[in-house]
Amino acid sequence: MTTERLARQLQFILELDKLKGILRRSLLLESHRRENSAEHSWHLAMMVLVLAEHADEPVDQLHTLKLVLVHDIVEIDAGDTYAYDPASHAGKNDREQMAAERIFGLLPVEQAEELVNLWEEYEGQETPEARFALALDRLMPLLHNYHTGGVTWRENRVTSVQVKERMAPVAVSSDALGRTVSDIVKQAVDSGLLPHSWSEP
Amino acid sequence: MTTERLARQLQFILELDKLKGILRRSLLLESHRRENSAEHSWHLAMMVLVLAEHADEPVDQLHTLKLVLVHDIVEIDAGDTYAYDPASHAGKNDREQMAAERIFGLLPVEQAEELVNLWEEYEGQETPEARFALALDRLMPLLHNYHTGGVTWRENRVTSVQVKERMAPVAVSSDALGRTVSDIVKQAVDSGLLPHSWSEP
Repeated sequence: MTTERLARQLQFILELDKLKGILRRSLLLESHRRENSAEHSWHLAMMVLVLAEHADEPVDQLHTLKLVLVHDIVEIDAGDTYAYDPASHAGKNDREQMAAERIFGLLPVEQAEELVNLWEEYEGQETPEARFALALDRLMPLLHNYHTGGVTWRENRVTSVQVKERMAPVAVSSDALGRTVSDIVKQAVDSGLLPHSWSEP
Repeated sequence: MTTERLARQLQFILELDKLKGILRRSLLLESHRRENSAEHSWHLAMMVLVLAEHADEPVDQLHTLKLVLVHDIVEIDAGDTYAYDPASHAGKNDREQMAAERIFGLLPVEQAEELVNLWEEYEGQETPEARFALALDRLMPLLHNYHTGGVTWRENRVTSVQVKERMAPVAVSSDALGRTVSDIVKQAVDSGLLPHSWSEP
């Protein structure tokens, strides 16, 4: 027999399947389909394994992995919020708080608390691990956008100033990754993918 | 400037995007589209966070996470091998070995070695962490198949004996998860989703 505790855990595991249906704006490098938040979370976890040495403050790898694995789960209910669309940010905090309570609440109590705490730590940005996790979460869409010809920048009339603002957390956590961001943004601007401003439509 | 070391790491990170295009047989619970190996790997990582207590031998969580995050990366070159198709297993080892050398070889040498070792450890099944990672990798498709009405079992004329054999590693690593597997297989058989044999077409 499956115990009630395990049954709750499996119910949560099944619920997580929905994150594979939450689409982000980023386009994949080869197929150019939109990325979903589950595969994105795996990609960030791999970045933690490979890039952790570049965090300026030492980060605990297990803890950082947990943060990136969990950070987008609330999107199952609250949806993905597009970085460069201020309107979509209205009510985001309330939506995500309710989502966290429902989804993590499927788990046994102490596990629900652990995962809520991880999600809140990521959002709060008060620890080296949370800052490094955010840096990776900002860096990856820059790589995607740059290597898919800036399509989503063009579609949404995103400017170089907006991208630089958006990427600021990368340099906060890592000088090395911050320099990489500067390089890529400069190349995107120089090659015309990312203008300082868009002419009227 | 981005150092050569970081440039290699980023090249590897970009290469990983391709795992999002490797399709498995499993259907997602809601959309019934086929699952890809990147989002599958994230799902296994979440199972490590939530289910590690059920491993009969204690497992190191960080190490188990690394194993599941890395275990399918060779599929970028070697493709996914369907469990119940013996023909697709021909040459699998050679294909995957070459894939590991090429893909992990994009990284700086000591990181390439670490990831190759993780992949080989998973394949070798000699450690508690590798056994638990495999148990989760077997359990999840059972959940997917059962909760999507057994479509892929029916399409591929998979029998209850084949599923029981395929699921054997679950009970090897975890009594509790093994019991869950037994429950689900019994329900699948009783409800007609998973017959002992299929009549001739």
